[in-house]
Amino acid sequence: MFITFEGVEGAGKTTQIGLLKDFFEKIGKKVIVTRQPGGTELGKKIRELILDPEQEDKPSKMCELMLYLADRAHHTETVIEKNLKENTVVLSDRYADSTIAYQGYARNGNIEQLEFLNNIATKGIKPDITIVLDIDPNISMERIQERKLDRIESEKIDFHNKVREGFLEIAKKEPERVIIINANESLEQIKEQIESIIVNKMKILT
Amino acid sequence: MFITFEGVEGAGKTTQIGLLKDFFEKIGKKVIVTRQPGGTELGKKIRELILDPEQEDKPSKMCELMLYLADRAHHTETVIEKNLKENTVVLSDRYADSTIAYQGYARNGNIEQLEFLNNIATKGIKPDITIVLDIDPNISMERIQERKLDRIESEKIDFHNKVREGFLEIAKKEPERVIIINANESLEQIKEQIESIIVNKMKILT
Repeated sequence: MFITFEGVEGAGKTTQIGLLKDFFEKIGKKVIVTRQPGGTELGKKIRELILDPEQEDKPSKMCELMLYLADRAHHTETVIEKNLKENTVVLSDRYADSTIAYQGYARNGNIEQLEFLNNIATKGIKPDITIVLDIDPNISMERIQERKLDRIESEKIDFHNKVREGFLEIAKKEPERVIIINANESLEQIKEQIESIIVNKMKILT
Repeated sequence: MFITFEGVEGAGKTTQIGLLKDFFEKIGKKVIVTRQPGGTELGKKIRELILDPEQEDKPSKMCELMLYLADRAHHTETVIEKNLKENTVVLSDRYADSTIAYQGYARNGNIEQLEFLNNIATKGIKPDITIVLDIDPNISMERIQERKLDRIESEKIDFHNKVREGFLEIAKKEPERVIIINANESLEQIKEQIESIIVNKMKILT
């Protein structure tokens, strides 16, 4: 089973991924937690090229996209595909939908072209379930204001609003796969909603 | 005017690019010499990720391709396009054809898909002239055996033979743009052939 978490910065993905990992372990499933970008040794270096706010030669829009795809291609092949083959549940913090939301909706990229590029980079591997933690960026950005922000996190609020809209559009297009969860609720409420979605999906898949 | 040099490793591109730069300066043209990958600060870091033979987490085939495209997108926009707009002649050591020859012909990639990806990364910017320095890899690899070889240069001779065949195929498809030069001849003979091709092209373009 391949599950991805999406959402704007500060939506609480990391926390919920940790809780879902515990859930799978409790029911006796092998599970790994990983991320895009930066889910491999090589990917960490690629991630730095994309996100380092101190880098002087900032990637052009198209270069940024290709670097994300390079990370995704490597990570999908060497981590996701490999673990799925071994019957390990894979939980990924971000995946292909982030490219559609960020480079497509927020940076005005060509959505159809981005979907095509994602498909090449992932060799068509799609998540069984994608959880979008939905929250107003005005609230979520406040949550992470203590962090040292990277280049993408430092974008203006308008950018993050467009990202949020992007995820909502994706969910409209693929309601079977992409589930929107209200990330304003309590950790416990969110956790329970996610677990019940997963349990239902497992029934369908088995 | 945008001129690219292509060919297998050790074909003598660097030397001939230097001579052609002198030629342009002699006739009073502004000219820059650049390269792919690694023609920008960011590109140098990307180049390292691709070519470092000591890196343990070697890029997957698709990741390698995307890293080349990331370098190309950034370099084409921030160096090539910018200089061409200022009427500076641009000489580039490798460009989009290398992807077709290496990732396409030598690594059995989908040529049509690669052409499509090149087109996205370069926003359709094509060289006016491409000089392919053609040589038997058995000879050229001997020329560079003193160098510390990078990950691509260290490929087996069969790989380099396929790269060579790739460039010859590209020249067949686009004979107006892509000119094959026999790189076994003397430096002086090669230099004169290149200059006469360029002079003819300048007559057509002006």
